[in-house]
Amino acid sequence: MVKVGVVGYGVIGQRLADGVARQKDMELVGVADVAPTLAIRALKEKGMPYAFYLGMAENKPQFDALAIPVAGTLEELVQKVDVVLDATSAGIGAKNKELYAKYNKKAIFQGGEKNSVADVFFHGYANYEKGLGKQFLKLTSCNTTGLIRSVDCLDRAYGVEKVAITIIRRVADPGDYHRGLTNALQIDKAPSHQALDLMTIMPHIDATGILVHTPVTHGHIITVVATTKQKINKAQALEAFGRHPRIRVVRIADGFQGNASLFRYARDLGNPRGDMYEIALWEESIVESGRDIMYAINIPQEAVTIPETMDAIRAAMQMQTERLAAVGETNKHLGLGKWLQN
Amino acid sequence: MVKVGVVGYGVIGQRLADGVARQKDMELVGVADVAPTLAIRALKEKGMPYAFYLGMAENKPQFDALAIPVAGTLEELVQKVDVVLDATSAGIGAKNKELYAKYNKKAIFQGGEKNSVADVFFHGYANYEKGLGKQFLKLTSCNTTGLIRSVDCLDRAYGVEKVAITIIRRVADPGDYHRGLTNALQIDKAPSHQALDLMTIMPHIDATGILVHTPVTHGHIITVVATTKQKINKAQALEAFGRHPRIRVVRIADGFQGNASLFRYARDLGNPRGDMYEIALWEESIVESGRDIMYAINIPQEAVTIPETMDAIRAAMQMQTERLAAVGETNKHLGLGKWLQN
Amino acid sequence: MVKVGVVGYGVIGQRLADGVARQKDMELVGVADVAPTLAIRALKEKGMPYAFYLGMAENKPQFDALAIPVAGTLEELVQKVDVVLDATSAGIGAKNKELYAKYNKKAIFQGGEKNSVADVFFHGYANYEKGLGKQFLKLTSCNTTGLIRSVDCLDRAYGVEKVAITIIRRVADPGDYHRGLTNALQIDKAPSHQALDLMTIMPHIDATGILVHTPVTHGHIITVVATTKQKINKAQALEAFGRHPRIRVVRIADGFQGNASLFRYARDLGNPRGDMYEIALWEESIVESGRDIMYAINIPQEAVTIPETMDAIRAAMQMQTERLAAVGETNKHLGLGKWLQN
Amino acid sequence: MVKVGVVGYGVIGQRLADGVARQKDMELVGVADVAPTLAIRALKEKGMPYAFYLGMAENKPQFDALAIPVAGTLEELVQKVDVVLDATSAGIGAKNKELYAKYNKKAIFQGGEKNSVADVFFHGYANYEKGLGKQFLKLTSCNTTGLIRSVDCLDRAYGVEKVAITIIRRVADPGDYHRGLTNALQIDKAPSHQALDLMTIMPHIDATGILVHTPVTHGHIITVVATTKQKINKAQALEAFGRHPRIRVVRIADGFQGNASLFRYARDLGNPRGDMYEIALWEESIVESGRDIMYAINIPQEAVTIPETMDAIRAAMQMQTERLAAVGETNKHLGLGKWLQN
Repeated sequence: MVKVGVVGYGVIGQRLADGVARQKDMELVGVADVAPTLAIRALKEKGMPYAFYLGMAENKPQFDALAIPVAGTLEELVQKVDVVLDATSAGIGAKNKELYAKYNKKAIFQGGEKNSVADVFFHGYANYEKGLGKQFLKLTSCNTTGLIRSVDCLDRAYGVEKVAITIIRRVADPGDYHRGLTNALQIDKAPSHQALDLMTIMPHIDATGILVHTPVTHGHIITVVATTKQKINKAQALEAFGRHPRIRVVRIADGFQGNASLFRYARDLGNPRGDMYEIALWEESIVESGRDIMYAINIPQEAVTIPETMDAIRAAMQMQTERLAAVGETNKHLGLGKWLQN
Repeated sequence: MVKVGVVGYGVIGQRLADGVARQKDMELVGVADVAPTLAIRALKEKGMPYAFYLGMAENKPQFDALAIPVAGTLEELVQKVDVVLDATSAGIGAKNKELYAKYNKKAIFQGGEKNSVADVFFHGYANYEKGLGKQFLKLTSCNTTGLIRSVDCLDRAYGVEKVAITIIRRVADPGDYHRGLTNALQIDKAPSHQALDLMTIMPHIDATGILVHTPVTHGHIITVVATTKQKINKAQALEAFGRHPRIRVVRIADGFQGNASLFRYARDLGNPRGDMYEIALWEESIVESGRDIMYAINIPQEAVTIPETMDAIRAAMQMQTERLAAVGETNKHLGLGKWLQN
Repeated sequence: MVKVGVVGYGVIGQRLADGVARQKDMELVGVADVAPTLAIRALKEKGMPYAFYLGMAENKPQFDALAIPVAGTLEELVQKVDVVLDATSAGIGAKNKELYAKYNKKAIFQGGEKNSVADVFFHGYANYEKGLGKQFLKLTSCNTTGLIRSVDCLDRAYGVEKVAITIIRRVADPGDYHRGLTNALQIDKAPSHQALDLMTIMPHIDATGILVHTPVTHGHIITVVATTKQKINKAQALEAFGRHPRIRVVRIADGFQGNASLFRYARDLGNPRGDMYEIALWEESIVESGRDIMYAINIPQEAVTIPETMDAIRAAMQMQTERLAAVGETNKHLGLGKWLQN
Repeated sequence: MVKVGVVGYGVIGQRLADGVARQKDMELVGVADVAPTLAIRALKEKGMPYAFYLGMAENKPQFDALAIPVAGTLEELVQKVDVVLDATSAGIGAKNKELYAKYNKKAIFQGGEKNSVADVFFHGYANYEKGLGKQFLKLTSCNTTGLIRSVDCLDRAYGVEKVAITIIRRVADPGDYHRGLTNALQIDKAPSHQALDLMTIMPHIDATGILVHTPVTHGHIITVVATTKQKINKAQALEAFGRHPRIRVVRIADGFQGNASLFRYARDLGNPRGDMYEIALWEESIVESGRDIMYAINIPQEAVTIPETMDAIRAAMQMQTERLAAVGETNKHLGLGKWLQN
């Protein structure tokens, strides 16, 4: 059993902890944070299913006042685990890295950190082998993770030369009050970092893209114009996407009208927090454009990176050396691709 | 074991079914709807935890094509149960009533139906006794249900003469595409029906109010100006609210900044679908205004009426004859008020 | 002086009337509608700068009660003019066409009508010559009008073979209460009609695209991936766009952060209603993608079709027979391209 | 002619400048700001109708590069005027005050500054006399300004003892990208500062209130529960409101469905920037609540304080010594109350 700790118990950290807890070959030792946030209060109200370690000793009295049990310090948690999943705010991870290095522990950072924090920039499906045995890995961001799933899928099936993407980005998560946009679309300087990141992970592909922020919370939508080595038609694209355990092909005609339908469906499925690990791909969005194929995907930003982070643990700890075996193991524990059998 | 069927498996119907399934002294016989909506597809993907009955025979082939098992017809479901929870779209319930009457079954309608559909307009805390043994009950709507909880709470503690409310209404549920509002507040003709409904349930109170629709999905907020028989102060109000198992007193200072914080918290608590049965009341919103007391509450529209509907089953079926025993039984099964012990 | 009448005094009709009033070689005879809407009430409060004709005689008492002067019937207006601009709701124009035909008048329909209503599907810059002397013309819709401006611009400069577009669509206009979307992105079946319409107007180009609705009101954003005959670079694209009198090249760095910045700027410019006739194109959005060029434009949906409608009058009435002379005349009266001299 | 300068040319500053330019007995000497914002670029594109003074000398090269004429420094502007309208960001005004004091000039600050910056906290209708001859005045904020208009109106007609308000606040202005809220309502600690400010201006009234932020941009809505000395009915309230030149009584039945309808109407009226100086009050919102009267008003946040700021100039400069003469003069120049004659 690989021992795992989660540092930073926010939107991503909570989901990482839940994800690890579902891996039968891993053990979640505990989670760490610095203050009694709502997420920690919820942990308390649930009866502390995960042990809590405190990253800021001076805040201990606050926890005592709330009767929230503290199992130890962040440093103690680090010592107890084989690998740390760092889901702290951007920039903090780079600082925490010193602690992980001090105890010679492996660590996996989320997409908000700089690439330089890690030995390898990682995606479970696209470059699993690169992560094998590495000490520090950094995951791709939520948009890039989902985007690469779909591009890697096409690439392995038909060969992809070039992609041009448009990211219609959700600007905040449900419950965020520290950021937001009201009745406005906001455009970023192009090319978007997601296109550049894709090229770092898949250097044989030429990628560019434009990102527009929109005032919604339930998932990004990305349109992709992909130039394949040889022309493919809609049916061929669908065939490849339809077999991928982390891509759910959905139909507008069935009621999947947009990102919010997918969020509702995940809630109705009974998924914890109404989360979805898989990206969705709309069947009716696939169109041919000369030699290119164009399609649209939905990125459930809160949970989409969890599977690839589990893959990263497998790679770093060399739990599986073969890519498909590794992602398959993750998929099994997370129930990914089950809908393919229905 | 009282046998219950749920007719209409939408936003409310799904939650009613889950609510019944949690009552140890009730049995959920099945749920009924007319088409393979996303909610039904989710039921299928979950492995049919509830038996499904079809309300529109001509749609059977659609279900067969999707391999969704159909346990029987709506009429068959009605025959098998003691009481029906009708959560169909407004207006349909009145039609369905003929079917319920034909088999001499009890039925409980949601707030969208006209009052005339039922023998009594019901609220578990405010007028439980009125529902005892009745055949047809109609629940108050989501806003009214939550509002009455707080007003009844004050009324029983201190006596309330008059309330003036402002409803800041969420305009759609997460995932709704058939209605919405974009960058606009919309005002309704006053007085709001919620104020009038409150007076129907609590005729000794004079109520009026204004309703404004806002483009959000995660909960209504209502401000209440309540005139009590004798002046009370903030501490007295807080004392009464703080003991109510269906009112969660929260603090902005703790991170409960608005309706979306409560939705996030409910998700982090692991509540199915991220739902909340209790209303929230902000401690920092309570202010004294001359002899009046003013406060703000949050109404989680998707799930707030579930507890009072369980109460209604208890009343209609005379499972408990005493108000506090009945609501207490419901609370126990739904875990309501557990936070009071923390 | 060409005599013009505007039928339908809503969002588009009001702006058409203002646009005609600014053309020194046209005379606005009057505007017509059927009920005392807010737009008509505003006309009254402004002192009736335009004569009003009534399209529904039975509503005359409503106008009398409000002391709104009625200059005559819709049929009388039609008789007085050379050309009608029909800006009624989709479907009404096709019915009104019989009246226009009865008096042998020319008519120009907006994008909501079916193509079959007209002899030609028209865009001032892209196919002016096709409209010359025709009786019935139909304008492209707001998105298509703006999109074609940019594609036609590139096409005339460098030759365009293919475009793949992503339309990030505003879902309602400011003040709309009959439609809206709340916290949701909504995707349409692809290809979008705008791509198909572009091919109707510019049959030598292969076009496809995906449209996503977003809950905002101040302008659509379209990203375009254009394949030119020969590879061009960003500077070349910018050079062509920068000379177009109906394309305003803007910079994020200057403060044009999105669609709402452009709306604010138009208000600060003192444009009537804060409208903008020109599309905006973000300089920092232009990127090269292999042989393709990618860029993003903003479509101010309320006013963008006004210039091309003025062009259509010129074509239908053969006021100018040469394309550039015609659009140049329209531009001069509307002040388009003035910023190029600054 | 009283000479006026406007310091800070943002959302409020631009409208103050336009407002001064419409007063026949005032002269707008110029406007000042520190950087070439979009508002300044728009001023340039319009041909510099107002002279521009620079508040930050080191930014001069930026203005030269854009060929924006600079008439002088902020300090020079201050010397040339009798009174400064300071519309800088909160906190800057207090610093600028030293400059105004150095040259012994009068200055009027907007609501964002602390009360201590001024000799008097001012509202044209409610306490005009207090401002007479004062050197430093501070205006009430947008919400408070509009709220006081309605409360003062009732108070002078019938006597008001107490108000309890609910502010449904727009969270950003159109075009704001530095703040926003997405799919969330946010509640502030009560009582709201607007209630406290009302008591400062009208100390004989007891006021409290709750404020909730909403993700919209076109106007706040406030509901008011007012306790009058003697009970009044709806008709009496309407009679008082209907005569006020800065209150526009509107009807939902006529199409005024919410804050966005009013913004649209102002645009259709041809008001510069689509602004509205008057608050709106919905006739159908007025309800009686025991001895209280309840109603809802709309606050057009961008322009609502302009009339009262003009009043403040009149008071500070003692242009009129009598309250009604002063506000009447402002109303005349701004066209306020014209709709009463229609």
